[in-house]
Amino acid sequence: MELGLLYSGGKDSTLAALLLEDFYDVTLVTAQFGITDDWEHAGETAADLGFDFRRLELDRAVAHEAVDRIREDGFPRNGIQHVHQHALEELAAADFDAIADGTRRDDRVPTVSRAQAQSLEDRHGVDYIAPLSGFGRNAVDRLVDAHLEVTVGPSEEIRRADYEAELRAIIADEDGSEAIPEYFPDHEQTYVTGIR
Amino acid sequence: MELGLLYSGGKDSTLAALLLEDFYDVTLVTAQFGITDDWEHAGETAADLGFDFRRLELDRAVAHEAVDRIREDGFPRNGIQHVHQHALEELAAADFDAIADGTRRDDRVPTVSRAQAQSLEDRHGVDYIAPLSGFGRNAVDRLVDAHLEVTVGPSEEIRRADYEAELRAIIADEDGSEAIPEYFPDHEQTYVTGIR
Repeated sequence: MELGLLYSGGKDSTLAALLLEDFYDVTLVTAQFGITDDWEHAGETAADLGFDFRRLELDRAVAHEAVDRIREDGFPRNGIQHVHQHALEELAAADFDAIADGTRRDDRVPTVSRAQAQSLEDRHGVDYIAPLSGFGRNAVDRLVDAHLEVTVGPSEEIRRADYEAELRAIIADEDGSEAIPEYFPDHEQTYVTGIR
Repeated sequence: MELGLLYSGGKDSTLAALLLEDFYDVTLVTAQFGITDDWEHAGETAADLGFDFRRLELDRAVAHEAVDRIREDGFPRNGIQHVHQHALEELAAADFDAIADGTRRDDRVPTVSRAQAQSLEDRHGVDYIAPLSGFGRNAVDRLVDAHLEVTVGPSEEIRRADYEAELRAIIADEDGSEAIPEYFPDHEQTYVTGIR
């Protein structure tokens, strides 16, 4: 069965790929608005790991809706959730038998409820799989240590193909880069560089 | 890392074992009250599949509490949930680094909430993993068809090492076997006979 996995090049979505690869024909799919070229890094990592790779173009209007929401809220959670739901809808509408993402049990964002999962499956005739949703933070960290080589650094330096990078770029463009820390708290990002 | 997986010999817990085997040293653990010898079938299946196997003895008082609850409710769900929580506590107290079960996203019973999972992990210093909790019913069925050989039949004929069999045996002993259909609706059970 052909499975498309939303892929950022980060540790969670890479670990999800390893968990699924014996059971599905996995294609790593980086969803992006065409605002930055960070998707290229995810594509290089996918190639290094030996997975098929594809870009999924998202509707740029959704990025602007997300940024409006982030400005209104003062924090990014709901905006990122909005983009993730759009990405899952677009991926479900593509030609895969099953779709997946790297959401974990302990994630606050993005989340996909059981009802949302069922709705995606029923409307699009695909299986939606969240292989890490049964793993807590510590379990994921231990599996990452055992199986992946990663680079860790602050969000602004690590080039990762997650939605945050493109939303930050819109804010920097429209409000100036000094506006970014108002909405996005400093945090460490990881980028996968190989499999152990 | 050593992982103990609650194992009934059914398709869900067997599929959970296959999902985890590349990432953990998996031991299949059949929890039982010593009321029936159905655990032997799970042990044989575990050996056929090449997994280590262990019995985990449960407190027989919990079986009687569960049966009391089932009589009171008129349906088995809460009684089975009570036994599953006891089994997870006992497994978490054993000498594994991680514990797991075969609960699926769409299961109504047993269920383990995120708060219960976190509490188990914090109190016992283990990781609790539910590898099928990110898979819906259809996805599980398709993986089972692709990877497992199974026998299907009515609950009273399929000898499976789940809690239901031992609770049914207590009810048959105390109330007569004609009492069983009052509490346990007819349903198909599966027993795994091999890996494809």
